[in-house]
Amino acid sequence: MNNSYSAAFLLILVFPFNCLLAEPHRTVLTSVKEGIHLESWRMTSRDLQVQGTPIFSVEKVTLHGGKQEGVDLVIIDNGELQIRIIPTRGMGVLDVRTSKIRLGWESPVREVVHPRHVNLHDRGGLGWLEGFNEWLVRCGLEFAGLPGRDSFINTLGETAEMDLTLHGKIGNIPASEVEVLIEEVPPYRIRVRGRVDERMFSGPNLELWTEISTQPGSRRFTLSDQLTNHGSFAQEFQLIYHVNYGSPLLEEGSIFVAPASRIYPFNEHSARNIAAFDQYQAPKAGFVAEVYTLYPLAGEQGRTTVALRNRDATKAVSMSFSVEELPYLTLWKNTNSVKEGYVTGIEPGTGFPNNRQVERKFGRVPKLNPGEARTFHLEFAIHDGQAQVANVLDQISRIQGAREQILEPSVEQIP
Amino acid sequence: MNNSYSAAFLLILVFPFNCLLAEPHRTVLTSVKEGIHLESWRMTSRDLQVQGTPIFSVEKVTLHGGKQEGVDLVIIDNGELQIRIIPTRGMGVLDVRTSKIRLGWESPVREVVHPRHVNLHDRGGLGWLEGFNEWLVRCGLEFAGLPGRDSFINTLGETAEMDLTLHGKIGNIPASEVEVLIEEVPPYRIRVRGRVDERMFSGPNLELWTEISTQPGSRRFTLSDQLTNHGSFAQEFQLIYHVNYGSPLLEEGSIFVAPASRIYPFNEHSARNIAAFDQYQAPKAGFVAEVYTLYPLAGEQGRTTVALRNRDATKAVSMSFSVEELPYLTLWKNTNSVKEGYVTGIEPGTGFPNNRQVERKFGRVPKLNPGEARTFHLEFAIHDGQAQVANVLDQISRIQGAREQILEPSVEQIP
Amino acid sequence: MNNSYSAAFLLILVFPFNCLLAEPHRTVLTSVKEGIHLESWRMTSRDLQVQGTPIFSVEKVTLHGGKQEGVDLVIIDNGELQIRIIPTRGMGVLDVRTSKIRLGWESPVREVVHPRHVNLHDRGGLGWLEGFNEWLVRCGLEFAGLPGRDSFINTLGETAEMDLTLHGKIGNIPASEVEVLIEEVPPYRIRVRGRVDERMFSGPNLELWTEISTQPGSRRFTLSDQLTNHGSFAQEFQLIYHVNYGSPLLEEGSIFVAPASRIYPFNEHSARNIAAFDQYQAPKAGFVAEVYTLYPLAGEQGRTTVALRNRDATKAVSMSFSVEELPYLTLWKNTNSVKEGYVTGIEPGTGFPNNRQVERKFGRVPKLNPGEARTFHLEFAIHDGQAQVANVLDQISRIQGAREQILEPSVEQIP
Repeated sequence: MNNSYSAAFLLILVFPFNCLLAEPHRTVLTSVKEGIHLESWRMTSRDLQVQGTPIFSVEKVTLHGGKQEGVDLVIIDNGELQIRIIPTRGMGVLDVRTSKIRLGWESPVREVVHPRHVNLHDRGGLGWLEGFNEWLVRCGLEFAGLPGRDSFINTLGETAEMDLTLHGKIGNIPASEVEVLIEEVPPYRIRVRGRVDERMFSGPNLELWTEISTQPGSRRFTLSDQLTNHGSFAQEFQLIYHVNYGSPLLEEGSIFVAPASRIYPFNEHSARNIAAFDQYQAPKAGFVAEVYTLYPLAGEQGRTTVALRNRDATKAVSMSFSVEELPYLTLWKNTNSVKEGYVTGIEPGTGFPNNRQVERKFGRVPKLNPGEARTFHLEFAIHDGQAQVANVLDQISRIQGAREQILEPSVEQIP
Repeated sequence: MNNSYSAAFLLILVFPFNCLLAEPHRTVLTSVKEGIHLESWRMTSRDLQVQGTPIFSVEKVTLHGGKQEGVDLVIIDNGELQIRIIPTRGMGVLDVRTSKIRLGWESPVREVVHPRHVNLHDRGGLGWLEGFNEWLVRCGLEFAGLPGRDSFINTLGETAEMDLTLHGKIGNIPASEVEVLIEEVPPYRIRVRGRVDERMFSGPNLELWTEISTQPGSRRFTLSDQLTNHGSFAQEFQLIYHVNYGSPLLEEGSIFVAPASRIYPFNEHSARNIAAFDQYQAPKAGFVAEVYTLYPLAGEQGRTTVALRNRDATKAVSMSFSVEELPYLTLWKNTNSVKEGYVTGIEPGTGFPNNRQVERKFGRVPKLNPGEARTFHLEFAIHDGQAQVANVLDQISRIQGAREQILEPSVEQIP
Repeated sequence: MNNSYSAAFLLILVFPFNCLLAEPHRTVLTSVKEGIHLESWRMTSRDLQVQGTPIFSVEKVTLHGGKQEGVDLVIIDNGELQIRIIPTRGMGVLDVRTSKIRLGWESPVREVVHPRHVNLHDRGGLGWLEGFNEWLVRCGLEFAGLPGRDSFINTLGETAEMDLTLHGKIGNIPASEVEVLIEEVPPYRIRVRGRVDERMFSGPNLELWTEISTQPGSRRFTLSDQLTNHGSFAQEFQLIYHVNYGSPLLEEGSIFVAPASRIYPFNEHSARNIAAFDQYQAPKAGFVAEVYTLYPLAGEQGRTTVALRNRDATKAVSMSFSVEELPYLTLWKNTNSVKEGYVTGIEPGTGFPNNRQVERKFGRVPKLNPGEARTFHLEFAIHDGQAQVANVLDQISRIQGAREQILEPSVEQIP
């Protein structure tokens, strides 16, 4: 009795204190510094003696066979969502699933391809497409967008030329540090962090810390990235979040919704259908991708929300981001046959996916000063059922408000 | 006594029944689907309690060191032949040996090179040669033959240009599925099957199932390949079986024998010696390769047989294939020094090894419709001793029959 | 008693005999031939029961994470020096340390990059810079120096064009054989040997046996390389030892000292500062590399010694080599910011680092006849304290003697 009284007393005293100090559980899965690279690992809420939440887990597995031999996956299961992260491919995300909805798509690329099997210079600079099957892949960092030649300063201080390859290197660089953090106090936030370096001698000196986090039982999750220039010079960079959807969110009659001031066709081909830029057709073999470039409008705190909903508005995914961090939004509509990859990309970025030379002329290639860092926060939510979908669409509509949305008839011209 | 009687009775009853239903023994060595990639494995006829055949085995080993670190070999030993298959290099075959004869050659490339150490774009598109040392390597699938630029349709539906690299990619793609099948009833056929995918987004969607099979104690073996277009469009393809021989089958005085209607020199250099196109010289440092393109003639069931025999006609290898499946045959005579690779290639294909752009003009770049598959069957036999050699040569001679074999004096012109 | 007498007697008899015959201890760490690739290994002087020397060891470790997953390091610790060799990167040397002095530098490239993550054709042929962080890296073997097109003879005997990439391939080829040899008799010399092959079909057929050796307790160590042409033709080659220093040997006021007859600027930019070619400045962001080409003068036995000393002449490193083996010396001064890589390269070679096409015109691309081998011996010493530094500088001064050292005002012209 005396004992239990003291225990209760201690609890009162200790709990809030403990709360403030509590270090989250931390497991290092990969570390260049510490020489760590775990083949497999798994931790569940039970291992952490967490109660009162859905059973959650984080797992590390290694893929085998073909082009995926030795590729790492880190799988967060928060009890509601299953998120599969690919440290070997720049901390991209293969897919996110609930029991009913999958964020992701069916690419002809069936394996999670190890970067060693990707030659970015292949196919006239489109080699990136040999590994392209992620739900979310970052494009960048020194350059993103279409391939083509651009000039740079070489090791001898002279202007030289190089071939920029589609969407840059970051999606094919393995993470140098990967760690799992799980808070041991409510709400038991689960975080998977990874550092991907795009560094070379006489070139970019960029470090990207990525973080994906969620809470047990939630249908929401967050990406928090920090990009730092460790070089001594102002460094150009490009960063596009290439976020891709197939079935069930993409189908005939699906609608893309975004607050935006102006919307341009990316090329002549896309100009013809700009009036229906936000509407999707059924899969059609031979459909040539249509691409639109949007200037998103912000609501409170400079953030905006865009969404993709299915035909009968019973399922949707929304993405929120800061238009200060990511002022440009590209919509890629590739409603080709299922076998060729029926997919749409919703791509917020620091620019549009033109070749860097073009983006530079538009003033859309930002620079990071020496030591400077920029952060990028994206929130994703899955909306299941008419009420939830209506709610998020209403929210987007309120951001647009009375502001006009102009559909430009022709491709944006270099100023 | 009673017991043994029942057992015998059961045998009589069960055996034929068992025969019909018997599933072969099956071991999966590599599987992308199942996450399998065995480091080593071995099974012998003893493990399967097979009796009445030469002792046979199938083995999987992993190579180590240098450029071959992590390369898989699967070795079939049927008691007479030892066949070394390279799953890591597109299911190519390193060599085939009997106690006296080796199918294969000595390349300056000494290791079984992992594709990660091959940059196909190297050396003006000749990077493929950094790994070239197989007895049999498939060239293709989207393209084969000489390097050079060709146009293609890019992701935006525009015509773009790409550098085709020598002999394409398939020889440097690791197999996604590898399995061993051994029939548990006579004749205990041994099969090694592997699936190699040449797939990418906005590109080819080709799947190649390869099979190499043989029977215990035999000097014959078979390749059965099936190529399927999983895309939604008619897909061009090229497939050449680059089958290469050095000593002991290749020596001064060796003769190549093939039923053919017309034989062209591949280039001006080769035109000079077309009269001796089927005769081989001793190794000679600085010998410039001579190449001839043949239109093979078929015998029964549309199949033909070609052979390479040694000087005194005591050793030979023969290859049989369908001229419907593989209507073109290239002979590559590279009787350079032993150190540089004294070798001849006998190469049935869906075309000749010109750059695809040239082959297309000749109408020799076939297409696979969506979902369509083509099969390719090649039978190889080793002939040891004068009687066996005479027999196969006679068989080839009968296919040619009275039909004329025309040696064309100059390179074939685009029609 | 009788016993111990016999034993002593035997010792007397046997010891010298043993000494002459004694095979060194030998461990094979990697072998293509034997299928060996050890994950980790360690041997110390105690294991060998060596006494009377500082405790020494040789260790093999495997790096993990990011771009260095699976990279081998072999670490010699002779009790005074710690030498880290990278078999996976052509037997380059990451760094050499004493308790006070480190030979090496801080590159923006932080990991020991696996060759599979380096595309030499990247960045207009500068892809080599993605892995460049070694103290010593060999450039070559078929070509070294600046990128650019050059012609070659292709498989059909025709002249074709290829893109030479910066500093060639050898630094990104994993060693095929690696072994540790430790003499079991005084002075217990420690040797790490590795064979790196630059071989392909219809290309170079070059084998490089490298050896790094030192003695327990010494501040000296030796590189002994043997390059052999296993082809049937005279083979052009280029070999440059790219040896790089940052802090503490490189600082403002550091001086480079070399006996030389003539010194040219490598380019116009470098011409301006040729008067101070041997003096170093403090790190300065945006400093454009200055490069000088020297014709070293030999002393006794055709050998020369060059050195880099710190500002107050209390620390230095010296390198001795034969000017017959390595007749050309390049000085690369890249006193950029610490973050960009504050570094100087002292680079003896068979030529200067122009593109091969240029070097050929100068007559500086040697050939190896079939079967011919050349050896290259470099000795390094760390000099700690004013006396030692003064001593080596004096030695260098005596090699120069009364001979004039001419600073040429403009770039050397093709003869």
